[in-house]
Amino acid sequence: MSDIRFDIGSLHAAYEAGTGIAKVIDTALARIEAADDPGIFIHLATRAELLAQAEALGLFDPVAKPLWGIPFAVKDNIDVAGMPTTAACAEYAYVPTKDATVVAKLRAAGALVLGKTNLDQFATGLVGVRTPWPIPRNAIDPKLVPGGSSSGSAVATARGIVSFALGTDTAGSGRIPAGLNNIVGLKPTVGALSTTGVVPACRTLDCVSVFALSVDDAYAVFGAATGFDPSDPYSRSVSTSPLGPRPPTLTVGVPASADRKFFGDASMQVGFETALAALETLGARLVEIPFSDFYATADLLYEGAWVAERYAAILDFFEANEAALHPVTRKIIGSARNLSAADAFRGLYALQAYKARLAPVIASVDLFCVPTAPTHYTVDAVLADPIATNSRLGTYTNFVNLLDMCGIAVPTGTRDDGLPMGVTLLAAAGLDGLVASVARDLHAASGLTLGATGWRQPIAQPVSAAAADGSIELVVVGAHLSGMPLNGQLKEAGARFCRATRTASSYKLFELAGQATPKPGLVRVGNGGTAIEVEVWRLPADAFGHFVAAIPPPLGIGSIELDDGSTAKGFLVESVGLLGASDISSFGGWRRFLSDRVPA
Amino acid sequence: MSDIRFDIGSLHAAYEAGTGIAKVIDTALARIEAADDPGIFIHLATRAELLAQAEALGLFDPVAKPLWGIPFAVKDNIDVAGMPTTAACAEYAYVPTKDATVVAKLRAAGALVLGKTNLDQFATGLVGVRTPWPIPRNAIDPKLVPGGSSSGSAVATARGIVSFALGTDTAGSGRIPAGLNNIVGLKPTVGALSTTGVVPACRTLDCVSVFALSVDDAYAVFGAATGFDPSDPYSRSVSTSPLGPRPPTLTVGVPASADRKFFGDASMQVGFETALAALETLGARLVEIPFSDFYATADLLYEGAWVAERYAAILDFFEANEAALHPVTRKIIGSARNLSAADAFRGLYALQAYKARLAPVIASVDLFCVPTAPTHYTVDAVLADPIATNSRLGTYTNFVNLLDMCGIAVPTGTRDDGLPMGVTLLAAAGLDGLVASVARDLHAASGLTLGATGWRQPIAQPVSAAAADGSIELVVVGAHLSGMPLNGQLKEAGARFCRATRTASSYKLFELAGQATPKPGLVRVGNGGTAIEVEVWRLPADAFGHFVAAIPPPLGIGSIELDDGSTAKGFLVESVGLLGASDISSFGGWRRFLSDRVPA
Repeated sequence: MSDIRFDIGSLHAAYEAGTGIAKVIDTALARIEAADDPGIFIHLATRAELLAQAEALGLFDPVAKPLWGIPFAVKDNIDVAGMPTTAACAEYAYVPTKDATVVAKLRAAGALVLGKTNLDQFATGLVGVRTPWPIPRNAIDPKLVPGGSSSGSAVATARGIVSFALGTDTAGSGRIPAGLNNIVGLKPTVGALSTTGVVPACRTLDCVSVFALSVDDAYAVFGAATGFDPSDPYSRSVSTSPLGPRPPTLTVGVPASADRKFFGDASMQVGFETALAALETLGARLVEIPFSDFYATADLLYEGAWVAERYAAILDFFEANEAALHPVTRKIIGSARNLSAADAFRGLYALQAYKARLAPVIASVDLFCVPTAPTHYTVDAVLADPIATNSRLGTYTNFVNLLDMCGIAVPTGTRDDGLPMGVTLLAAAGLDGLVASVARDLHAASGLTLGATGWRQPIAQPVSAAAADGSIELVVVGAHLSGMPLNGQLKEAGARFCRATRTASSYKLFELAGQATPKPGLVRVGNGGTAIEVEVWRLPADAFGHFVAAIPPPLGIGSIELDDGSTAKGFLVESVGLLGASDISSFGGWRRFLSDRVPA
Repeated sequence: MSDIRFDIGSLHAAYEAGTGIAKVIDTALARIEAADDPGIFIHLATRAELLAQAEALGLFDPVAKPLWGIPFAVKDNIDVAGMPTTAACAEYAYVPTKDATVVAKLRAAGALVLGKTNLDQFATGLVGVRTPWPIPRNAIDPKLVPGGSSSGSAVATARGIVSFALGTDTAGSGRIPAGLNNIVGLKPTVGALSTTGVVPACRTLDCVSVFALSVDDAYAVFGAATGFDPSDPYSRSVSTSPLGPRPPTLTVGVPASADRKFFGDASMQVGFETALAALETLGARLVEIPFSDFYATADLLYEGAWVAERYAAILDFFEANEAALHPVTRKIIGSARNLSAADAFRGLYALQAYKARLAPVIASVDLFCVPTAPTHYTVDAVLADPIATNSRLGTYTNFVNLLDMCGIAVPTGTRDDGLPMGVTLLAAAGLDGLVASVARDLHAASGLTLGATGWRQPIAQPVSAAAADGSIELVVVGAHLSGMPLNGQLKEAGARFCRATRTASSYKLFELAGQATPKPGLVRVGNGGTAIEVEVWRLPADAFGHFVAAIPPPLGIGSIELDDGSTAKGFLVESVGLLGASDISSFGGWRRFLSDRVPA
């Protein structure tokens, strides 16, 4: 394999160091040749076309174009202008004149479309073998299925042919192939990435997903591809705040031991337990959660009415070209002919009942950790029993979009039999950044190389705690500091720790008089001030609002200048509240005051 | 008619003055006899049963039981323990052992169930004539249909037999009968009132609704009946804050003149224009909104897939007892047999597309005003053409639940032909209190008597501005006051004016130095303070959070003590910000300072 690493940081460093984009393109093309796998791509851009895309980018400018010169692949159920969209059904193919919204956004960010990748036909399947094109080879072990439906995108990423690839995910198509190919699969909140220009599977559930070699890369692509799209009725505005540090405390729901399903695969069971131990090492508290309702929800997807969405999506084509479909796909989608509208609504009612029952369960933890796949299957095993094996692969994925959760599949190790091991972190809609912040550290802890490339993980860059999600920073100075009596109020309000820092040198700290529990007051002064130790936390706007509303006098919230010159909201005290207060500024902070003061 | 008025305030005043509950029960029963309408009730409690209910209430205590001794009727698709539920189909009847959640809540609040009322069978219809029981007579003009499907509940309320009645509303069944009987029909946000114990029509859309003689009464019942119910998967937590004053400014969307539909009924057109003029007199700014997308959404309800929900709700009964159904109901519900699951999902997609397109339209105004019904129909006209007349009656109602809006039908006058005229105010989900606050004043402005009782409207009590909806009060003192330069920031954040008041006598007001636009600073002092004029506004918590976050130093938010001893959040100033500031406390407030100061 060439020495140009394709993770985004390395590739940008190479560009910065003078590597030409033509060399990157040639490297990608050489890797395709070296892979010798005719199942990965259904359509490939020519070298000339790629050079023309590159030409249009102008000079290297990763600020204006954060994905400048980054090659990517697109699952062939997502439109790229001028390239046929097949959905892995040649008879269905059309040549769109317009990029899908996500493709257009990624191109605008500087990324280069290398080609269109193979998939389980009409994105129906988790196996990657339901295609009239050659079956893509699993990048880690060619005996295994590549996983699907986004098979080609996952394999292209795992082989380092592209820096990232777009998949789609309705039942798990953006997670299973990641888990089977030792890469990251970011399955965003439903509606975060526009589905305009995507061949629908289940329109109420479909997500565009991102495969990448690292969590940082997947999340960077997520940030560039996300955005409310009025042309997609299911589009939602979702936070794409930069990755922050993982929360200092973390409660992680895991399937109760008795409810875990590995279908006899002891290696996967051990691998999962190892991954959970790694999470605990990161400070997570594990909580066993009964999983029967999650499984029952998962069963709705193919046993309930949602298969009718797949049928509705291609109804006219299906009725006119039934013989053109892959036999397994035909059987699955054709079964929807027997479903009535009453069946559909009864399916929706059943889902709503599970949603209502599981909402407090989901809210009871910060996130969930499940195996990405319960077991591995060989290509032969899947071809011998195509429906049952596929169904089992969806054990830990099928319920996710139905319950409006987001998730990220992340490699966590190598099983005792040498096959890849990974888990998926899941959380409620909108918490894409939270699961990514934890997945990032879990991936780093694994020490794994990337995909099938043999490249070591890039050294993790420190993450910023800034956010663009409408949450609000709060500077705390006293009883709300970590470990202090009122810190629990912050956590209950959904606050996340950002950093410990100091104020600008223009403050005085007082111990207030007449308080039941000791409290400080922070006062900005014209001169003679000092820097005071504080912590910065971040709260959702509504929680911040309620928090402010609950603060008793003489305390209030104003603007605090920090030692880096930035300003954030934080505790202030009314001057009338300083009557009888003692100036404790010399301690430099409340924590030091409590530990070092001489008791009266 | 007896001299005991049944509006809640009057009835409680009567109890307070010593009227016995037996006399109230006898009055109700006498009014039933006087009405001489066998179509109103399907089941009636006996006098002995009513006295037993009354006995169980204990002594008059309207604080512990805000609906103490208030008689109400229940549409016969809502369970009352021990009374048969028929849904106007005798063969379907069962006797529940448990009250529906809403009935239980109202009983717990002290209300007395008088009986079960007639309806369009299975709540399918807006006319009130689709019943095997006698057709209830419109309380205002017996030639007219009573409106449906909650026909009996509306007529019982209009005749003063009960103080209020429960209906249900999927397509307009809680609004049309109100409009046709000169009463108020409160159609809550979907999910606000539990549907546990209600025979479903369309489970994704069904609401329990409230008929009452006045907006205050309807809203009081709404408050008592509302509450998150874990047993109803569609239950939602919705604000039931006490009615506040209507906002001082108000933008009201109305159907564009060219899009208004009255089906040739010039009296209704004039009546609607008169109602709009009354809204303008209340200070509303009217904005004409193209209505074609609303009408197209409305068409989905019966022409799209939702009729399959009605079929799914009674599928087994329907298949076994088809002949038992009212012929019109049978035809409508039976049509769902031809709908496939794919049709259902295509209906959902169409709705989602309209929702996405209309979301910014709905957000562009505070609320909407539409005619409740586009025209009046006689019983004969409806019997002659049952489907088309029904469909037209839903012109301004069918889209509402599909678009997740709440609304309240309110009488606005008498048409030039003597028939009742009313409008419905509509707003986005959760704004039940907003539409009620405007409907209250609109009803008062009409000067109408109540229902068919001849009773004059009760004198409106001043409303409290307190809220229990998680919104937060903000005391403003300077540029955010009404009419001041920054007041628009409050309105943009969704703030609502509560009241003008003064602080406690412990504050000083300063004009801050060095501000681009003049700004005051409010400071609490140990002594020598004065009361300062302020305004109290109320913001949603997230908007309050963002508002606080945007306040520049030296201002901040702390606790302000008001002259009634209560405390609310409001603007404070850091003491360092007072450098060079002038004490302007003697003006008593910022507004006076600006008008009376002697320019420098």
